[in-house]
Amino acid sequence: MDVNVNDGDQYVIGVDFGTLSGRAVVVRVADGAELGAAVHEYAHGVIDRELPGTALRLPPDWALQCPEDWREVLRRAVPAALAASGVDPGKVIGIATDFTACTVLPTTADGTPLCELPDLAGRPHAWPKLWKHHAAQGQADRINAVAHERGEPWIGRYGGRISSEWQYAKALQVLEEDPESYARCARWIEAADWIVWQLAGVETRNTCTAGYKGIYQDGSYPTPDYLAALDPRFADFPATRLEPADGRGLSPLGSRVGGLTEQAAAWTGLPAGIAVAAGNVDAHVTAPAARAVADGRLLAIMGTSTCHVLNSAVLADVPGICGVVDGGITTGAYGYEAGQSAVGDIFAWWLRTGVPAEYHAEAAGRGESLHELLSRKCADQPVGGHGLVALDWMGGNRSVLVDHDLSGIIVGLTLATRPEEVYRALLEATAFGTRVIVEAFEKAGIAITEFIVAGGLKQNALLMQIYADVLRRPVSVATSDQGPALGSAIHAAVAAGAYADVRSAADAMGSVQTAAYTPDDTRADVYDQLFAEYQLLHDTFGGQGLLHRLRRIRNTALAGPRPIRREPGGRRNGADTSTGEPSAEGVLR
Amino acid sequence: MDVNVNDGDQYVIGVDFGTLSGRAVVVRVADGAELGAAVHEYAHGVIDRELPGTALRLPPDWALQCPEDWREVLRRAVPAALAASGVDPGKVIGIATDFTACTVLPTTADGTPLCELPDLAGRPHAWPKLWKHHAAQGQADRINAVAHERGEPWIGRYGGRISSEWQYAKALQVLEEDPESYARCARWIEAADWIVWQLAGVETRNTCTAGYKGIYQDGSYPTPDYLAALDPRFADFPATRLEPADGRGLSPLGSRVGGLTEQAAAWTGLPAGIAVAAGNVDAHVTAPAARAVADGRLLAIMGTSTCHVLNSAVLADVPGICGVVDGGITTGAYGYEAGQSAVGDIFAWWLRTGVPAEYHAEAAGRGESLHELLSRKCADQPVGGHGLVALDWMGGNRSVLVDHDLSGIIVGLTLATRPEEVYRALLEATAFGTRVIVEAFEKAGIAITEFIVAGGLKQNALLMQIYADVLRRPVSVATSDQGPALGSAIHAAVAAGAYADVRSAADAMGSVQTAAYTPDDTRADVYDQLFAEYQLLHDTFGGQGLLHRLRRIRNTALAGPRPIRREPGGRRNGADTSTGEPSAEGVLR
Repeated sequence: MDVNVNDGDQYVIGVDFGTLSGRAVVVRVADGAELGAAVHEYAHGVIDRELPGTALRLPPDWALQCPEDWREVLRRAVPAALAASGVDPGKVIGIATDFTACTVLPTTADGTPLCELPDLAGRPHAWPKLWKHHAAQGQADRINAVAHERGEPWIGRYGGRISSEWQYAKALQVLEEDPESYARCARWIEAADWIVWQLAGVETRNTCTAGYKGIYQDGSYPTPDYLAALDPRFADFPATRLEPADGRGLSPLGSRVGGLTEQAAAWTGLPAGIAVAAGNVDAHVTAPAARAVADGRLLAIMGTSTCHVLNSAVLADVPGICGVVDGGITTGAYGYEAGQSAVGDIFAWWLRTGVPAEYHAEAAGRGESLHELLSRKCADQPVGGHGLVALDWMGGNRSVLVDHDLSGIIVGLTLATRPEEVYRALLEATAFGTRVIVEAFEKAGIAITEFIVAGGLKQNALLMQIYADVLRRPVSVATSDQGPALGSAIHAAVAAGAYADVRSAADAMGSVQTAAYTPDDTRADVYDQLFAEYQLLHDTFGGQGLLHRLRRIRNTALAGPRPIRREPGGRRNGADTSTGEPSAEGVLR
Repeated sequence: MDVNVNDGDQYVIGVDFGTLSGRAVVVRVADGAELGAAVHEYAHGVIDRELPGTALRLPPDWALQCPEDWREVLRRAVPAALAASGVDPGKVIGIATDFTACTVLPTTADGTPLCELPDLAGRPHAWPKLWKHHAAQGQADRINAVAHERGEPWIGRYGGRISSEWQYAKALQVLEEDPESYARCARWIEAADWIVWQLAGVETRNTCTAGYKGIYQDGSYPTPDYLAALDPRFADFPATRLEPADGRGLSPLGSRVGGLTEQAAAWTGLPAGIAVAAGNVDAHVTAPAARAVADGRLLAIMGTSTCHVLNSAVLADVPGICGVVDGGITTGAYGYEAGQSAVGDIFAWWLRTGVPAEYHAEAAGRGESLHELLSRKCADQPVGGHGLVALDWMGGNRSVLVDHDLSGIIVGLTLATRPEEVYRALLEATAFGTRVIVEAFEKAGIAITEFIVAGGLKQNALLMQIYADVLRRPVSVATSDQGPALGSAIHAAVAAGAYADVRSAADAMGSVQTAAYTPDDTRADVYDQLFAEYQLLHDTFGGQGLLHRLRRIRNTALAGPRPIRREPGGRRNGADTSTGEPSAEGVLR
């Protein structure tokens, strides 16, 4: 491969840490050309059944990861991407990373994960909690209730609800369920910042995760008074475990946090000393790759889940969104984040669950994927022809209900309902979920001028057309198939000084296919009807009602020996603490 | 096989006409021993896509059958059963039949099905409508509305609602959608009576179908005034098409309607002249086979659908049941019928839809059926451990909502939900549906002293235990695996004069395993909680709300070229006529 086709001969590395694997890509600084890539699958994947090296069975809703899996990405994927690109490592000027969030772990003062200490390795709470660890809903509920009681100023910035996925709920769960591990935790750090620590030898906190996941707003974390109201032992949590010992502030996105250490250079095959950029989140980092940094461009990064990111000049409290952070996506704009907990995960679940043997055989015979087969079988059905509407809450609801004790519903099933019809109803349900989010922004006065999709699901033409029809908007599609890694590479180029800022780097290195799909009025009219039914189900089943009671019944039924010790005098270590008192009988919500 | 082991050497034939096949059984009169059986599958099965011999595509919810398939059962299954039994045909003293209901057809005056006339064979409305033809809901809605407006005395006997499955709704659909076929229809006759006409050469109407499906109460059919209010052309429907020309009354169950004709003797290999019993319904006829004729014994015949039959000395109007008919099950008692439109059909739907390829492979490897595999995989899960509750309305709701425009719902799905968990939730949903029916009887003052199961699903031990736990009652199980055919044989024995009445014949020829399954209090306690949620969903989604709107959206989407001509000036021939005006926006029911 000829790396001298243009005027530039400088390169950067972007590394994207996903849920199941990490991907490295080698990118030309001049124009964003992707010259080589490599993927490393995590050996442990998502740890949600047994704790590695033990016979401990994890409770429902737990999801952990193994830090060594992440280091292996640096050792394997980066050299492999370099080799694939043919680029001389000596011409690489910077590296940047992005991570799932809030994926967070407890470490010692020097950054050693607690789960790597032999005496703590058998304790689930010593391990990194993956973003989709959903077992801290009880803590999140109290975080929210106390914040509203006290009128905490920051709660509105998070749509009125802090998610159980984020730093505080997860940390409070550790404190309450395993105070010993909590006591040994010197640093509570996002994986996004931990990986930068591994690369540059410097502990930092980036603007993005601190703001969206760490409740850092207007220059500070929540107050000790507020935290003490949650638990007196929690009052000093930010001071002792989040704020850096050296007193330095947050690292802006695209800033250089240090040079690559000798050890990291040895792992990666890159030159020591090259720029290491501040950590970032896989969704947010994608915005410049899809040229979605201008105000009003809503970027939906659609994969196992969907994350929506949006820059705006306007600061507003939008109910149910994940958060708004000054400079959270791009320095100089208010960055909004919203999300859907499960999207591609739902389709994959249905492929595992609802596709009969003869469909597998048919797909194999035609050389199609199951997704392609089901899409083909349902693509020509008129909108509404399946008679179905579903609630896409199989992974809970991130926006706008912020409730991971909700679950999914499929309505309208008949004996004639076919697997591809349910599949299509699930595709549509996620589009309706997106429409709820878009409408929430608009109701709050945040204009949305363009809808752009990145992520693996942009390949699904049926899905993209459904989104265009349901949203009644054109759908633009990011060009790159490795948006997060390209976005990281763009940040690496800025950190290395090749561009003045991320906006100018995005113009040179990012790209998008504008209005790749356009809505059809006839289909959109029927979708308006179906969306009205979706909204009705959404409003009926959202909240503390039937779905919460079912979750409690389930958790009580499955309660058995727990891997975590009960704290004497503390809160009960049972899943049924998560939703407080039962609602009145006979109430759906 | 030795047919002389007891003091009796007389035999009878019972023939059970099901949805997909007909079954004949040879039974010893003395003790009910089943000596030989044979099944004949209908060549056309259920006709729900294309009309045979044409390219006409049937609209949604249609279900037809072919009369020649039924004759073939007489020609094939009866001789095969005789051969299998080793019984000398000369020692057979009677034959009786039972049929699905309301399966009904238009014929000429001599009983020739209209669909067998060359000029009518291409018209869907000339064909027999199978019980599960669900396209006459609009007609049923008007039948009910007008009956309530006028205060018709019989409407309370049918739980307040006449089903779209029954004679009047189906006949009215023919009149409105194909008046030419209606005009050519000299006789509108239940298949149960038509098959007896083929055997004995005599047109009769049996007590059971006339009462439950033909609105025959207290000695008469609905009045011309009432029928004219539905449609002036319908005023003379009973007089011209139901009442026999010879003025004879209904035939009681177990009565002899005539002798076997020479032609039928040639078809079956039986002696001409032997007793042919009055027609009967597959569910009701099973009661004596399971010794369920005593007052208070509720017999659930569980197969593709479930039919509940119950004798009582008490006459009461029970909201939502199918009907109460004097002598409708056994002469001398008020016979109650209720039902669930789809039960085994729902489980089979899930097996077709929701079982992944590796489960098929596992079942094949272990020599299990898919039902066995799924049952084994979910049997040990604690009650409520799947977090699911479903509404078993995939085939509509027969009791107690009497609404075939309803559809199924599955609530509580997560990304961890496994196929066997949905399967179990579907089993449970049908048990909850049965509990709604049992409670409706009890609230109306009809005591239920025993719950007995017959039909193919009695083989499913997991299902039976779930019913015991959900109902908090012992479940008794009919001994015979061919309950309807044995029940018909019992009626044949009575018609032939071997017993004084069906009760005494049942004592000699029927049998049941009492309290084969008993409830477990711990499981029943959790089921009480889940049933409360089922009841809440039932009350929320029943009625003219979201599910009806979804059905209208579906039917509009699928509307295309119709096989049936539009009647000028008549009602619109579209499926969206079926539910009247849309409900208020934002209302689930």
